[in-house]
Amino acid sequence: MSVLVVGSVAFDSIKTPAGEAQEILGGAATYFAVTASYFTPVRIVAVVGDDFGSEQLKTFEGRPIDTSGLERASGRTFRWAGEYHGDMNEAKTLDTQLNVFANFAPKLPPAYLDTDFVFLANIQPTLQLEVREQLPKARLVGLDTMNYWINGTPDELRRALGRVDLMMINDKEARMLAGIDNLPRAAAAIRKLGPRTLVIKRGEYGAGLFQEDGFFFAPGYPLEEIRDPTGAGDTFAGGFMGYLARAGEASLPNLRRALVYGSVMASFAVEDFGLTRLLSLTPAHIEDRFEQFRRMTHFDV
Amino acid sequence: MSVLVVGSVAFDSIKTPAGEAQEILGGAATYFAVTASYFTPVRIVAVVGDDFGSEQLKTFEGRPIDTSGLERASGRTFRWAGEYHGDMNEAKTLDTQLNVFANFAPKLPPAYLDTDFVFLANIQPTLQLEVREQLPKARLVGLDTMNYWINGTPDELRRALGRVDLMMINDKEARMLAGIDNLPRAAAAIRKLGPRTLVIKRGEYGAGLFQEDGFFFAPGYPLEEIRDPTGAGDTFAGGFMGYLARAGEASLPNLRRALVYGSVMASFAVEDFGLTRLLSLTPAHIEDRFEQFRRMTHFDV
Repeated sequence: MSVLVVGSVAFDSIKTPAGEAQEILGGAATYFAVTASYFTPVRIVAVVGDDFGSEQLKTFEGRPIDTSGLERASGRTFRWAGEYHGDMNEAKTLDTQLNVFANFAPKLPPAYLDTDFVFLANIQPTLQLEVREQLPKARLVGLDTMNYWINGTPDELRRALGRVDLMMINDKEARMLAGIDNLPRAAAAIRKLGPRTLVIKRGEYGAGLFQEDGFFFAPGYPLEEIRDPTGAGDTFAGGFMGYLARAGEASLPNLRRALVYGSVMASFAVEDFGLTRLLSLTPAHIEDRFEQFRRMTHFDV
Repeated sequence: MSVLVVGSVAFDSIKTPAGEAQEILGGAATYFAVTASYFTPVRIVAVVGDDFGSEQLKTFEGRPIDTSGLERASGRTFRWAGEYHGDMNEAKTLDTQLNVFANFAPKLPPAYLDTDFVFLANIQPTLQLEVREQLPKARLVGLDTMNYWINGTPDELRRALGRVDLMMINDKEARMLAGIDNLPRAAAAIRKLGPRTLVIKRGEYGAGLFQEDGFFFAPGYPLEEIRDPTGAGDTFAGGFMGYLARAGEASLPNLRRALVYGSVMASFAVEDFGLTRLLSLTPAHIEDRFEQFRRMTHFDV
């Protein structure tokens, strides 16, 4: 089954202790789409400017990514510049130019309206809700957000949360959204707002799945070098949702495997700048690392 | 097989957001011994003062804990006072009175000299080495330390590390000891100093096992309330070493299960102040939570 993502496409300028890159293709929808395309057909809804040309489009070509929802607007594409220090757990934003993204009003091509799996990447919650309402037949709708919306538009965010099945968020933001320090209690409080499944991302410590009937955790992959953490969360989401859409059903065993595939894909993303490593993967790379995750978590009773 | 622990016995005064307790029995050797005694016979080497009487001794009685190595010295028992705030990941020490612990020179009763499994809890590294050298037949010797010795007596610590099989340390201290931020690379550097097995404790994020042939991780148990984190690391060590000693061999599958039993026991320790919860456990409680750990980490391929 297909997965639809709505989110940003951007040009990123990134500096890390391992090096730097100028104006490389990025954005949540880009990382998500490239990653999910290893698992299932992807439909993308985003806006780009005049400076997004055939060179950038090549990133999506040759992959099962439908770009008919990629709107061309007059002006420049969204730009972000940031740097990372020390353990690289947090980006320091140096510059943000919204450009054409400032007036983004997601438009869904008619052919997208039957999509079963939907991911509302981190954009204004009212836009997330508008997209969600256009897809009444979706089997599973996931949502990401960030501190900017948690603090800035809490009512709009709650309305959107009331209409989704799954939320993905990092642990710091989960505590902020719930106003509760203890993570399992924060998770329970967020689940009461709507999403029956909550995925909490914990950076190098991995990720956790919180549901009615319990927990599931996967560790972070112990990489000896992290070159660029940009896009790791969106890549995680792409692996998670891409696998679920391929599996076709959000059963408990599938959700667990989805969490591991998300972790697998995020572990590749950070190995090099931007999309470099993600674009070079083969299915065998992915399955090998999935097996590594099994080996580093399973024990006999 | 028996497990021997050398370390501190203390009276702790503790304040956390959940409450407080005055002069309750604590210390690394105490937490370790009580915990390991659920798995295997324990031998304790520590020093106490005149104020350690029959009431305190009751904690060890009725359990397979040999206290013939518990030295009585003239003076007061070691005292520690500390408090925890917010997420309780770090204690703020308010007061330390070494008392009889200041001149602690571990003495091993002759009956202890055939011990197979040994844990050198966090004491001065030269004392750790002296104990280790008196136990040449030990199958597995583990060692814990802290930032105070890493910075204050680095050469002594390195000599002790050169003579042990296993080191247990928290992630922050692992990075400090290795002088390397990246955790897998810090682990590799520490393993080069001697211990072929490294266990890295990560607080609420669980623990990791680093060895020649790979990694193993267990998450922290997602407790809805943590009342007192004091002794969690020593409890972890007691569960880890106690299980290994019961199993009788430090095979890879046993080391993995040991890491989970350590995590299980630590998750109980923090549920109440001091030893309260640990002293109330049954084998069924322990096996039930071990099964919870299996459920929250295993996935089907």
